Amino acid sequence: MKGNQDAMGQALYHCFQAGGDGVYSVIEREDGLVDVEATKVYFTQFHEWRPHEQEAMALVQGRVLDIGCGAGRHSLYLQEHGFDVLGIDPSPLALEVCRLRGLNQTALMSITQLSSGLGRFDTLLMMGNNFGLFASLRRARWLLKRFHGLTSPNARIIAQTLDPYQTALPEHLQYHEYNRRRGREGGQVRIRVRYRQYIGPWFDYLFVSKSELQELLQGTGWTATRFLDSEGPVYIAVLEEH
Amino acid sequence: MKGNQDAMGQALYHCFQAGGDGVYSVIEREDGLVDVEATKVYFTQFHEWRPHEQEAMALVQGRVLDIGCGAGRHSLYLQEHGFDVLGIDPSPLALEVCRLRGLNQTALMSITQLSSGLGRFDTLLMMGNNFGLFASLRRARWLLKRFHGLTSPNARIIAQTLDPYQTALPEHLQYHEYNRRRGREGGQVRIRVRYRQYIGPWFDYLFVSKSELQELLQGTGWTATRFLDSEGPVYIAVLEEH
Repeated sequence: MKGNQDAMGQALYHCFQAGGDGVYSVIEREDGLVDVEATKVYFTQFHEWRPHEQEAMALVQGRVLDIGCGAGRHSLYLQEHGFDVLGIDPSPLALEVCRLRGLNQTALMSITQLSSGLGRFDTLLMMGNNFGLFASLRRARWLLKRFHGLTSPNARIIAQTLDPYQTALPEHLQYHEYNRRRGREGGQVRIRVRYRQYIGPWFDYLFVSKSELQELLQGTGWTATRFLDSEGPVYIAVLEEH
Repeated sequence: MKGNQDAMGQALYHCFQAGGDGVYSVIEREDGLVDVEATKVYFTQFHEWRPHEQEAMALVQGRVLDIGCGAGRHSLYLQEHGFDVLGIDPSPLALEVCRLRGLNQTALMSITQLSSGLGRFDTLLMMGNNFGLFASLRRARWLLKRFHGLTSPNARIIAQTLDPYQTALPEHLQYHEYNRRRGREGGQVRIRVRYRQYIGPWFDYLFVSKSELQELLQGTGWTATRFLDSEGPVYIAVLEEH
């Protein structure tokens, strides 16, 4: 990732320097929709998380891989509680923030660059809607199969996403329809992150309903053993080998 | 302005409906820089304004034209204090918000559509950096001369801007340089407003230093009789006929 493309990293770094407030990044969807995100969300502490996110931490076991660790909010919490945690992220500045905040183990890589060279993990963590990093149904299936080479027997994947169809907003319903017409999943959003003069590359981010998730898991060797629900469309799926 | 282009109006309207919080618009500059603006700023009350903005209200006299009135924060304050105020804005939804908030006189028009048919004004108000609506040196001179046909003898223009050169940010210094290379003023920014799926048209917005302002006023029949300074680069100029 080139320096001027690391928009999320720049936002995280500036937010860290600024002590949390006043930093906002822009999530731009390919159809022109813009969403504003307060970067301080990435620095929240356990007591500020939603109940189902707090609950998920109780399901973490053994050695942990935090996929897309951002500013390290989950990794740092788990490290403090004695877990052996490796945080990975494709953003150099995000990892710099993690290190400055005290995270001991980080690696600069994207989800597709994971390899068995990192050793075995008992928990793969994809919080903060990072189920989305699977990007597409096809890539999700490919990655889930590869994950068997990274995980111990009885490993868990703890992944957060949201049901994209729990909305009445026409801008979202129309976008789902547009996606389906082009042979994409309804909730497969193409977005990029912008912060000040920094513009990240376009990437696909996948949101799935529970039934889409169940279908996607077929033949991957992973099964959803538990759902942790929020009060809204966001939920956490716990996947286990079978 | 087409409905899907009224990004600022949509932000103001949703902010009004939401009771103020959680609405952010994006200001996108032609070079890719994005700035995030909390829309609730447009709904602030007198006691929340900066001291020099409060001071400016004491200089308002007679019949008032509020140019680019937004959600009506200045117009409503003055109306409550007994002034005869007309708020103009090119955004239909901004004016709808003004009316819902109780502003009695509004007109849907841009600064270039002003005509003597509106009668004479004793104060032209261009708060919230709305000096920028002059867009360019050339248009500023043309409009300032036209304003004599709208104003009473001894009228005042109360206009807020900021000195664009009081910055150390490379992204701004480089943009000033880029502007000068193309024969534009350093502080003549080309921007558009984005909010959710709404994208406003590109427009020029002019920021000037005090010396640029003095030069610009030459031959317009207006002179800067007073400056109200803030602690930062923002200032208010009071212009009077001479």
